[in-house]
Amino acid sequence: MIRALYAGSFDPVTNGHLDIITRAAKLFGGLTVLVMQNTNKTSLFSLQERVELLRQVTANIPGVCVETADGLLADYARQHNVQILVRGVRGPQDIEPELAAAHFNSRFYPGLETVFLPTSLTWKYVSSSLVKEAAGAGGDISSFVPQVVAKAVKSKLG
Amino acid sequence: MIRALYAGSFDPVTNGHLDIITRAAKLFGGLTVLVMQNTNKTSLFSLQERVELLRQVTANIPGVCVETADGLLADYARQHNVQILVRGVRGPQDIEPELAAAHFNSRFYPGLETVFLPTSLTWKYVSSSLVKEAAGAGGDISSFVPQVVAKAVKSKLG
Amino acid sequence: MIRALYAGSFDPVTNGHLDIITRAAKLFGGLTVLVMQNTNKTSLFSLQERVELLRQVTANIPGVCVETADGLLADYARQHNVQILVRGVRGPQDIEPELAAAHFNSRFYPGLETVFLPTSLTWKYVSSSLVKEAAGAGGDISSFVPQVVAKAVKSKLG
Amino acid sequence: MIRALYAGSFDPVTNGHLDIITRAAKLFGGLTVLVMQNTNKTSLFSLQERVELLRQVTANIPGVCVETADGLLADYARQHNVQILVRGVRGPQDIEPELAAAHFNSRFYPGLETVFLPTSLTWKYVSSSLVKEAAGAGGDISSFVPQVVAKAVKSKLG
Amino acid sequence: MIRALYAGSFDPVTNGHLDIITRAAKLFGGLTVLVMQNTNKTSLFSLQERVELLRQVTANIPGVCVETADGLLADYARQHNVQILVRGVRGPQDIEPELAAAHFNSRFYPGLETVFLPTSLTWKYVSSSLVKEAAGAGGDISSFVPQVVAKAVKSKLG
Amino acid sequence: MIRALYAGSFDPVTNGHLDIITRAAKLFGGLTVLVMQNTNKTSLFSLQERVELLRQVTANIPGVCVETADGLLADYARQHNVQILVRGVRGPQDIEPELAAAHFNSRFYPGLETVFLPTSLTWKYVSSSLVKEAAGAGGDISSFVPQVVAKAVKSKLG
Repeated sequence: MIRALYAGSFDPVTNGHLDIITRAAKLFGGLTVLVMQNTNKTSLFSLQERVELLRQVTANIPGVCVETADGLLADYARQHNVQILVRGVRGPQDIEPELAAAHFNSRFYPGLETVFLPTSLTWKYVSSSLVKEAAGAGGDISSFVPQVVAKAVKSKLG
Repeated sequence: MIRALYAGSFDPVTNGHLDIITRAAKLFGGLTVLVMQNTNKTSLFSLQERVELLRQVTANIPGVCVETADGLLADYARQHNVQILVRGVRGPQDIEPELAAAHFNSRFYPGLETVFLPTSLTWKYVSSSLVKEAAGAGGDISSFVPQVVAKAVKSKLG
Repeated sequence: MIRALYAGSFDPVTNGHLDIITRAAKLFGGLTVLVMQNTNKTSLFSLQERVELLRQVTANIPGVCVETADGLLADYARQHNVQILVRGVRGPQDIEPELAAAHFNSRFYPGLETVFLPTSLTWKYVSSSLVKEAAGAGGDISSFVPQVVAKAVKSKLG
Repeated sequence: MIRALYAGSFDPVTNGHLDIITRAAKLFGGLTVLVMQNTNKTSLFSLQERVELLRQVTANIPGVCVETADGLLADYARQHNVQILVRGVRGPQDIEPELAAAHFNSRFYPGLETVFLPTSLTWKYVSSSLVKEAAGAGGDISSFVPQVVAKAVKSKLG
Repeated sequence: MIRALYAGSFDPVTNGHLDIITRAAKLFGGLTVLVMQNTNKTSLFSLQERVELLRQVTANIPGVCVETADGLLADYARQHNVQILVRGVRGPQDIEPELAAAHFNSRFYPGLETVFLPTSLTWKYVSSSLVKEAAGAGGDISSFVPQVVAKAVKSKLG
Repeated sequence: MIRALYAGSFDPVTNGHLDIITRAAKLFGGLTVLVMQNTNKTSLFSLQERVELLRQVTANIPGVCVETADGLLADYARQHNVQILVRGVRGPQDIEPELAAAHFNSRFYPGLETVFLPTSLTWKYVSSSLVKEAAGAGGDISSFVPQVVAKAVKSKLG
């Protein structure tokens, strides 16, 4: 059965990400969560910390493994023989950059498909950046991220 | 392996639909193309004609079958034990109605997932309604639809 | 305290409308719900039926009254000395037509303000037309509309 | 110098159309305003009435002529050796259907260019359909359309 | 009567902000303009300078006071017993981040309402960042901001 | 015949830019490509390098010249007696900032027109920033930019 890939910076993983991971792992024959170095932005957590958090919160989801990569996402997919990229979509604002990325990825690796899953309504407005912004201003983020993540964010920003 | 469902009015099927069908049939363990009665709009082709055209143009795509249904899409999915709906997405304008439909379908059949595939760039601006409008004005639509469809449209509108 | 106006076709009123009504009645010094004749579309319920349903479902919300009008919304507002129009907003797709309507209304009655309230997440994808479509296909709409409305729709479409 | 084409249904022409016509006629070496039969919608004014109104309100704009056509816009352009289509753009909601139309037109007549002019801020929210809706409800539309059009609408709807 | 809150970075206040302030102060029982520390971006004016400019340009608008805060906006609202946040909306591009912020704020302070007022057409395309960009390139910004602000920007950038 | 202006940061020029340049030069009586200092972002190429690359790749397009400017675009246009700005438009996401810029430019130089050309489908998802991101991750960008640009990017990032 076909394995899929869910790449992102996950700085940090939110309940929205977790929801996509859980559903995608069921839809496809397993899911590799790929934590990408994000060269454009400074991240709150190191690559290794992000991987660790993801491993903890996905430990009980069957078929999920967490890896890390730099370089081109399409290259990783080709090397690991994965032909499906999974992306969450929250609304129209997400679509054009996602379509552009999907197009680029299929140019670099023909046949690589990107499939979009709608974010669950509950997590529609949750994003890593809003979570960090709220936590930085002293807000309680425990309903937006897994408990271990809330704790880690707090110890970073507190 | 999991079978998926691609529902629409297909009045008539275009090269854009065909592209989604071909790719979705490969991604999932087969694809049922479901031609829905469209009660809101008057259609150019009858339900049976649309089914016939779809069967002809998908005859050589492995794993595809064409069916018809009225009633709730979510009910059809439940009765046939299908848990994946496939939708093509051309751009941001498609997203909100698609997310609303996906939400409704998952309310009527919890666990029913909708996955979006980006329309290939080549067919990005092709739609059944533009094809009909062009054909009605005397335009040659043979690069937008399969040949048998072009012929059928011509005999309807010519 | 300032009274506001919430106009629409309400064919039929949904839980989304009711949520806006409840919140707007609290924000302003009372709320007039104005059921407009919709000349463009054929409606499922008559004007009088829509008024009746609205009166039943808003009976216990303090400060709400339900009226009907034809003609220009701005004229009604001027004649009744109301200077605030309330509109629910679900997402970006709603905005341009709403801004155009707000602009027109303030051209016909300078000083007339339109304020937008975000639809609650729970009702984000609920609309009268989706409700009618679902009910027409045999779907159970009782979680999208008040019970009395669900019953009324069923007896119309059943 | 290159002549351009501005096609539409103009049912009726508004100040927004007139603004585009005036500016486009200056930008290019003359402008043909092409009134299209609109087969999808029932129109308030007949094709000939729309042409007449347009001729009256553009009589003093140098380089403008008003014509009528049915059939494919791209065919008209080819037969009259016009290679520029002009379109007004009011906001993001206009773009996708306009890009689709531009793409179709260039498929039917390779080399045919579509250029978009931003609607002036003053007329941003003015459209033929809002004007008709307002007039139908008894609103004074004299600030949205030329005087002769306001009069014609009134005698149709009054 | 209910007081409302209008928060932003106001770096610097524009005629567009001023228009929202004037209208919101009339709609509600007074308006607190809250200048927020913006931790993400470097600002042209210090927090104190922005407060001073706002106080000068709102001195004659009845019911307006200007305050400053850091921390969570929802916390400020709760502590000051304010239940209405006011936001200007210029077009569809503003909506998704605004809906996300509104949702977050109501999660941190249940019952906190966000109401959107459409920006007046005249100021639709005016923003603090475009004003700074234009001024930095030597443009005359005196028609976009109050005179005292134009002077302050000039002395910063000139 | 009227000359037009196509301004941008071109960091670096892509095949998408080149396509707009070629088509605009034909539509108008020549085209000045204006490379702007971009003060907001750090650029990969210096202003002079960007000019050089543009001159090389446009050498054979009749009527095109490449210049550089700082200061207000509208000032440059006025000083050089240009009344048409050309912009490429890829989709709805481009429109609001483009309309704001067009409005600002016409405020600073009344009569200055901005015309939008739709990006060709082939280059719809190509942008300087995606090209740099891909090249930085080791991707082959030779199908998105002219050969000389691909080489220059490689020697910068390799």
